Amino acid sequence: MCGAEAYIMLKNPKMALCKEHYREFVERKVERTIKRYHMIKENSKILVALSGGKDALAVALSLKNLGYEFECLHINLGIGKYSELSENKAKKQCEYINKNLHVVYLKELVGAGIGERRKNRAPCSYCGMTKRYLMNKFAVDMGFDAIATGHNLDDESAFLLGNLLHWNVDYLSRQGPVLPKGERMAARIKPLYELTNEQIEMYVKLFPVDCVSEKCPHAKGANSILYAKVLNEIETKSPGTKLNFVNGYLKNRDVFKAEEIKLNKCKICGMPTLGDICSFCRFWNMKEEVKFKELR
Amino acid sequence: MCGAEAYIMLKNPKMALCKEHYREFVERKVERTIKRYHMIKENSKILVALSGGKDALAVALSLKNLGYEFECLHINLGIGKYSELSENKAKKQCEYINKNLHVVYLKELVGAGIGERRKNRAPCSYCGMTKRYLMNKFAVDMGFDAIATGHNLDDESAFLLGNLLHWNVDYLSRQGPVLPKGERMAARIKPLYELTNEQIEMYVKLFPVDCVSEKCPHAKGANSILYAKVLNEIETKSPGTKLNFVNGYLKNRDVFKAEEIKLNKCKICGMPTLGDICSFCRFWNMKEEVKFKELR
Repeated sequence: MCGAEAYIMLKNPKMALCKEHYREFVERKVERTIKRYHMIKENSKILVALSGGKDALAVALSLKNLGYEFECLHINLGIGKYSELSENKAKKQCEYINKNLHVVYLKELVGAGIGERRKNRAPCSYCGMTKRYLMNKFAVDMGFDAIATGHNLDDESAFLLGNLLHWNVDYLSRQGPVLPKGERMAARIKPLYELTNEQIEMYVKLFPVDCVSEKCPHAKGANSILYAKVLNEIETKSPGTKLNFVNGYLKNRDVFKAEEIKLNKCKICGMPTLGDICSFCRFWNMKEEVKFKELR
Repeated sequence: MCGAEAYIMLKNPKMALCKEHYREFVERKVERTIKRYHMIKENSKILVALSGGKDALAVALSLKNLGYEFECLHINLGIGKYSELSENKAKKQCEYINKNLHVVYLKELVGAGIGERRKNRAPCSYCGMTKRYLMNKFAVDMGFDAIATGHNLDDESAFLLGNLLHWNVDYLSRQGPVLPKGERMAARIKPLYELTNEQIEMYVKLFPVDCVSEKCPHAKGANSILYAKVLNEIETKSPGTKLNFVNGYLKNRDVFKAEEIKLNKCKICGMPTLGDICSFCRFWNMKEEVKFKELR
């Protein structure tokens, strides 16, 4: 576009960009997503969930370059070498962007890592819940208003497809780029909502900082991977399908009405739950609430 | 299941069936679909749209074996050898099931076949409209109450997926196994709504009668083919997905509200249309309404 050597050939919109312009393109897109969905209010205290992977890194890099203030949280899930590697990458990433990093260790908090308890259950089935709980508890305890995660267009469109294939009306009523703040619930925001896996990969490669590229040893052909794959087949034929799919959904989301839910306070930790005891305290068999050490 | 040699290994529900039991399985499924959606009322005059292909043949065979009364209509679309072949197969099929066949010739009615006019337009873009119009006009003029078509689970789930990917709320509000009868509109019913391509193929092979297996020369990688393909990838991993997908949709269909539409009478043919002149009369540049010869 500018005469410099092309770094990437975008398909939607169709254009060839040099490194500098590509970086601008991505960051402008993140900025527009943040503004369009009112993700960050003035004086919001933002916590970036920094897994060590490319998506979280892209959130941190773009927010930093756009001038946002934030701190980072890494959750060490206690999955052997994989978790060690992830923690190291997260640390180096935070050094590079010069932001505060908090690290919490699942093993310290509940006495075991993912995959070490209740071996009859697939680790992925409770890993997401565990991460969401700890991110939220940490944010609430430490006074953060919103948690920024690396969910991207591929994740979100695959999740949407899965929920439509199974008509999970409950999820369909509240999926989206922002989950609003509530009582003892930090907001959750997804600044990469409109960027694809591929675009994010090419963005982080622009910076001299590494991310975990290994897959979690527990990850096995989840349905969501298949959904993402088939959406990419369709995207290849009709570029723009994924973005139109999620945008069309957001326009129509109101047609899905979830049943009113009444949230209780978990009897052990006080966090919101549908029942008496929240899934986290129940699964990890907690006797008292998780307590984080002071900010390091 | 019965000790006889297995003819097919079904995946959903999982069972091996001999020829005789498989035939029963399919016909019972058709019967249940007809009853569940109240497709055929007592004394309904039914017209089966007999293209010559496997799906239409399966409709005719199963309705015949279930004891329903009906007549058949074949539309010769004027697509060279392909249409000749299709007409011949349809004729032989009707001889085999011993039912009345009506044949109408697009060339006689409008002076050209599909693909011979307005060469700048993709033939598929008006072929569907043309067939639907002629089926309906014929049914209305000749006093049929409902038209049975061969749309199957693969077609319907692919169509649904396409409409969800593009959030065609209008289509989403009225897709389904039955389109009700209206003013100058015969009902449209889809007795194969719950049967897959593969199941239908194996069903028609049970009978000593042929169908067109050639593809229409105009058919080129339509999106619907891709949607069907990706749904089959998901089905392979999770048998039952397609059926649950359309059934879940039917349960939730009411959330999609189409804008009220007011139908006018086409100034040329008197059939229902949104504007002044219906798509058929407009596209084919009709000066007066299509008139079918008496029943042959």
